[in-house]
Amino acid sequence: MSLVVQKYGGSSVADAQCIKRVAQRIVATKKAGHDVVVVVSAMGDTTDELRDLAQQVSPLPPPRELDMLLTAGERISMALLAMAIANLGQTAKSYTGSQAGVITTNHHGRAKIIDITPGRIRQTLDEGAIAIVAGFQGVSQDTKEITTLGRGASDTTAVALAAALGADVCEIYTDVDGVFTADPRIVPTARRIPQISYAEMLEMAACGAKVLHLRCVEYARRYSVPIHVRSSFSTKPGTWVADPEVMRKVATSGVADVPSRSFEEGEMEQPIISGVAHDRSEAKITVVGVPDKVGEAARIFTTLADAEINIDMIVQNVSGVATGRTDISFTLPRADAQQAMAALARIQDEVGFERLLYDDRIGKVSLIGAGMRTNPGVAARFFQAVAEAGVNIEMISTSEIRVSLVVDEDDVDAAVAAAHRAFDLDADQVEAVVYGGTGR
Amino acid sequence: MSLVVQKYGGSSVADAQCIKRVAQRIVATKKAGHDVVVVVSAMGDTTDELRDLAQQVSPLPPPRELDMLLTAGERISMALLAMAIANLGQTAKSYTGSQAGVITTNHHGRAKIIDITPGRIRQTLDEGAIAIVAGFQGVSQDTKEITTLGRGASDTTAVALAAALGADVCEIYTDVDGVFTADPRIVPTARRIPQISYAEMLEMAACGAKVLHLRCVEYARRYSVPIHVRSSFSTKPGTWVADPEVMRKVATSGVADVPSRSFEEGEMEQPIISGVAHDRSEAKITVVGVPDKVGEAARIFTTLADAEINIDMIVQNVSGVATGRTDISFTLPRADAQQAMAALARIQDEVGFERLLYDDRIGKVSLIGAGMRTNPGVAARFFQAVAEAGVNIEMISTSEIRVSLVVDEDDVDAAVAAAHRAFDLDADQVEAVVYGGTGR
Repeated sequence: MSLVVQKYGGSSVADAQCIKRVAQRIVATKKAGHDVVVVVSAMGDTTDELRDLAQQVSPLPPPRELDMLLTAGERISMALLAMAIANLGQTAKSYTGSQAGVITTNHHGRAKIIDITPGRIRQTLDEGAIAIVAGFQGVSQDTKEITTLGRGASDTTAVALAAALGADVCEIYTDVDGVFTADPRIVPTARRIPQISYAEMLEMAACGAKVLHLRCVEYARRYSVPIHVRSSFSTKPGTWVADPEVMRKVATSGVADVPSRSFEEGEMEQPIISGVAHDRSEAKITVVGVPDKVGEAARIFTTLADAEINIDMIVQNVSGVATGRTDISFTLPRADAQQAMAALARIQDEVGFERLLYDDRIGKVSLIGAGMRTNPGVAARFFQAVAEAGVNIEMISTSEIRVSLVVDEDDVDAAVAAAHRAFDLDADQVEAVVYGGTGR
Repeated sequence: MSLVVQKYGGSSVADAQCIKRVAQRIVATKKAGHDVVVVVSAMGDTTDELRDLAQQVSPLPPPRELDMLLTAGERISMALLAMAIANLGQTAKSYTGSQAGVITTNHHGRAKIIDITPGRIRQTLDEGAIAIVAGFQGVSQDTKEITTLGRGASDTTAVALAAALGADVCEIYTDVDGVFTADPRIVPTARRIPQISYAEMLEMAACGAKVLHLRCVEYARRYSVPIHVRSSFSTKPGTWVADPEVMRKVATSGVADVPSRSFEEGEMEQPIISGVAHDRSEAKITVVGVPDKVGEAARIFTTLADAEINIDMIVQNVSGVATGRTDISFTLPRADAQQAMAALARIQDEVGFERLLYDDRIGKVSLIGAGMRTNPGVAARFFQAVAEAGVNIEMISTSEIRVSLVVDEDDVDAAVAAAHRAFDLDADQVEAVVYGGTGR
């Protein structure tokens, strides 16, 4: 029997009415002959409301207690969803992350999944019932404490469970129709992408596409879990995230209709531009006047790593021959900037750099697609389009399938639109199947 | 070191402000040199709001899922309370019923505590931290499912934990100053009772005094746990619930000041009237024309017991010699009345009774005090006072320390006031120390 894992986000279970509609969709899947495991987020703004409550009693709540508090959110939505399903005549049992066997590290607030031991979930399926699992939460391996996986990590719970259970597909339900070639709010002619590879989706997510969480795509790639991102408000197909080999397996299993071209390799050797992603959540720090000798950059980034700060782009300017000093710039989440500045200030004397510059009025625009490295014209065309839109480029970073630019925050929309146009991604100029893109 | 268990009800943790005030009281207790374990209910109306949500998705939610849902309530309040304590510089760790080792039967919605295995709580105390435990909830022994103990059962959690940990006192914080000789809303001259025995408090609770839950007092008596019922809004002493022997131990431990006369035996052989309790939550069912032969009453009450309906008073009239038939009346919670009527209707032919009468316009007024049985004048004086108030008595039931009357619902206030006056319980006529009474 085929097994479908479905994940519903907070907007899909925002109130009783939404929960009842989701229950109908789950029951329909069950009645179509599939075993069903559902991963659910907290209702609507519950998590934010709980955070507000925490702020009201303490400006700096202990992470253990914050996790205990926030996990109440999914507990409420999962129990209500199980009730709504029962009301439609099917049996459903809800399980906390801990009960579902989601074993994590004990880093409260951003725990990582170590293992899934889904014994109770399997038993529930064997009994012919539907299993509902709380997303976003788990239990730490050593200390048996309740943990959360960090913001938006319910997607990761769903993919990890799908991998552990050997599910045929992991459906991620959201409030958009899938992954798009650009944010439709910026580029109205942006198109839904029927299928995208793990690698390109990873770059999309890392570059600001918000429809899927980065960790979830990493997990899916590692365990070859096919993801189907789709709207909980319609029955239209969405975007499949998987490599051709995995898509072939989905087509064979018959668990779902898949885009006909999704497991062909495409035109080899031709660059296939996936889409344009953007990100306004980062800040830029420049370490000015770093002595140009071995180990200084390592010292700086080790310090940041020790503070558990995730760095994104790093650019080091050519060393000034006369001064023997160099400047190192990097981008990072704005939320971590204050902590990073403090950590760097503490090693200023030791490293001997001159000063720190901070800029949070930046945005990142990224072009993603296969075959870029071997087609140098792609980057040039990207820079040209952005320049013609009157946008100044502050930093450049590239990977095999991505070119990212840092620009002024106010120039992000213009740069995205210009790039989307320059690579013929607009709806009236493009083929039905476009590989890659960005959602919102 | 002394150990204090404190229990705070929903109204004591209704919002962030209340939670901060409770945190201060807890920290003050800790700083006074005591180990502290806190049992907490859900905030204000949270439980009712969650029940409403359940009703919106399903008219008859599965009990397992309802328990999963409702337990989110204490999870929120206990985490917030731990945060508020941390903000005052003390370490506090919150634990669900399951984590705290509250092992129960698997009867969802009204599980009973089988055992407490408070390993993690002890460890938390050994680390010098304050332990916060969710009231009202546990985990079933066989199926490892999340259970709730039923309405108002956080008191029971507190007393059970106090017993398991060998606490010196279990403080139950509420929104009144303690247990009173009658409901102050009916009898404005009612007085707070400094100390009352387990047996009398049991009768009080069973007869409608709402300040303490019946099961909690039963548990306290079985394990000799001294309870101090007091207001979370003041530091005044409240009402001690314990027998003299237990009170002597509290006085010796020095954990709290206790009423000076609380462990004296009082004037032996004299009836000591505790207070007047009342209850408007019951209904009366009369089974008319039951054949007067062996086993018929047993058949009726076995049927009700099988339906898990708790019966209160039972009165069987003298059998009519001519007819060979008798009438059996009993009272029960109104909420169970419909189910009881249905269960009895199903055995009508088998038992051969004539018909069922139902009356939910009744109230129960009870006089509670030690030494009643050996002082027959007490009951007579009670009946006389009620009669002089113009109130008709429908049923009478007595125990060693209680006389209960069923009267018309509209006559309850008059009967309570008349009895309170007749036994000199009014504040301006009574000694400072009165044993027994009723709260609201």
